[in-house]
Amino acid sequence: MVQRITIDPQQCEGLVVALKADQLHYLLRVLRLKAGDRFIAQDGQGQQWLVALSDQLDQAQIVEQIVQTGDAAKEPPLRLIAALPKGNGFDQVVRQSTELGVTHIYPVMSDRSLLQPSSHKLARWQRIAQEAAEQSERISVPEIFAPTDFRACIAQITLKTDFCYLCAARTESPHLLKQVLTDLTSENLRGVTLAIGPEGGWTSDEITVALKCGYEVVSLGSVILRAVTAPVAALSLVTAARELLI
Amino acid sequence: MVQRITIDPQQCEGLVVALKADQLHYLLRVLRLKAGDRFIAQDGQGQQWLVALSDQLDQAQIVEQIVQTGDAAKEPPLRLIAALPKGNGFDQVVRQSTELGVTHIYPVMSDRSLLQPSSHKLARWQRIAQEAAEQSERISVPEIFAPTDFRACIAQITLKTDFCYLCAARTESPHLLKQVLTDLTSENLRGVTLAIGPEGGWTSDEITVALKCGYEVVSLGSVILRAVTAPVAALSLVTAARELLI
Repeated sequence: MVQRITIDPQQCEGLVVALKADQLHYLLRVLRLKAGDRFIAQDGQGQQWLVALSDQLDQAQIVEQIVQTGDAAKEPPLRLIAALPKGNGFDQVVRQSTELGVTHIYPVMSDRSLLQPSSHKLARWQRIAQEAAEQSERISVPEIFAPTDFRACIAQITLKTDFCYLCAARTESPHLLKQVLTDLTSENLRGVTLAIGPEGGWTSDEITVALKCGYEVVSLGSVILRAVTAPVAALSLVTAARELLI
Repeated sequence: MVQRITIDPQQCEGLVVALKADQLHYLLRVLRLKAGDRFIAQDGQGQQWLVALSDQLDQAQIVEQIVQTGDAAKEPPLRLIAALPKGNGFDQVVRQSTELGVTHIYPVMSDRSLLQPSSHKLARWQRIAQEAAEQSERISVPEIFAPTDFRACIAQITLKTDFCYLCAARTESPHLLKQVLTDLTSENLRGVTLAIGPEGGWTSDEITVALKCGYEVVSLGSVILRAVTAPVAALSLVTAARELLI
């Protein structure tokens, strides 16, 4: 299997990709590539190239641009709004969500969030997303936004183009799977936004605000999931429902 | 919310539950319960009691047995056969699978497994499953079996009573979601067994053996999932499909 790394567009000059120290470490030490060996360089925004390691070993030569086949290229957005769990739990959310095809991640503070996130977390999450995208052979790295207040976040991204779902535990709401199987059709393959609450769930005021912003309240069933598992379960359902349409 | 702990049936004598040191630590130090405070004691096999901490604080008095309502009590089995990922990855598989309602976990060594599991892992996984079951308010703790060879395992649990699926990446097989939505009906709510491969996937010989044992080969879609994420994604789909039938 051809390995892939994510590069900054500025690293490209003509047909040459200048490699950075951490990329060189990964290519030469971890993957043990040698001059002439090929790998994929991607810019994380949908462009990717087959490249070959040059003789000097500090740069790579573009062999050809890889043109993405139709479907993957025009895949509609899959946005995750997730309340920050305690500890380093969000690292796992970012990693697993990226594997499952999320395109935008909005970490939020909710009424029942315990965590005031430190400012250097964002860079860490972006690094994790990039690694996970490479591992999962995704050509786009999900965009991760700085943590904001939940109400501010959903007021901003009440997108007319998305089906927006708020997942709430212990409700009588319809199951997310039922809802996406009904809503998503091949003719109407809109984006999907999922909002997932903290341990302890959303407050009733938060649910009211989300309803006003056009969110549909859905359930993930009778199981009680931790805040790190709920996004994975929810994204699995949306990704799978979409695949049934293709 | 009433907290719950798992007890050994031998701890019960008449209406008194003798508490062990680690349970006392959890109840008195972590939860800070006081004499008279109530919690749920469950035996991990489907029985549970509302109990109250006694004045001596080293035992609890049974207040009443909790009778489970129909559905949860007779839920059909959900078995996971999973190739052991490297490192401590299986801890996460056990924890998240338990949240999602797995009833039996069979860790297996497959042709592409790197790991020869150490013997003390099993006790650790059982502890994680117990904690996760308590957190998720599940009355049954999943049973975890000692690691075995994949072929030996599926030869043993080719159950006539289960729908058996082998999840394989990069195949043209039908999607697991499509398959369970077709197979599971309210009249035919059989158990489900899911077999999930290691990083790198099953070998073609393993797939052939599974087919012979009556397994259906299914896909988890075009996403490339790590061995710790694939079980969570697959179990989410089965659990959700079942909920649509209730």
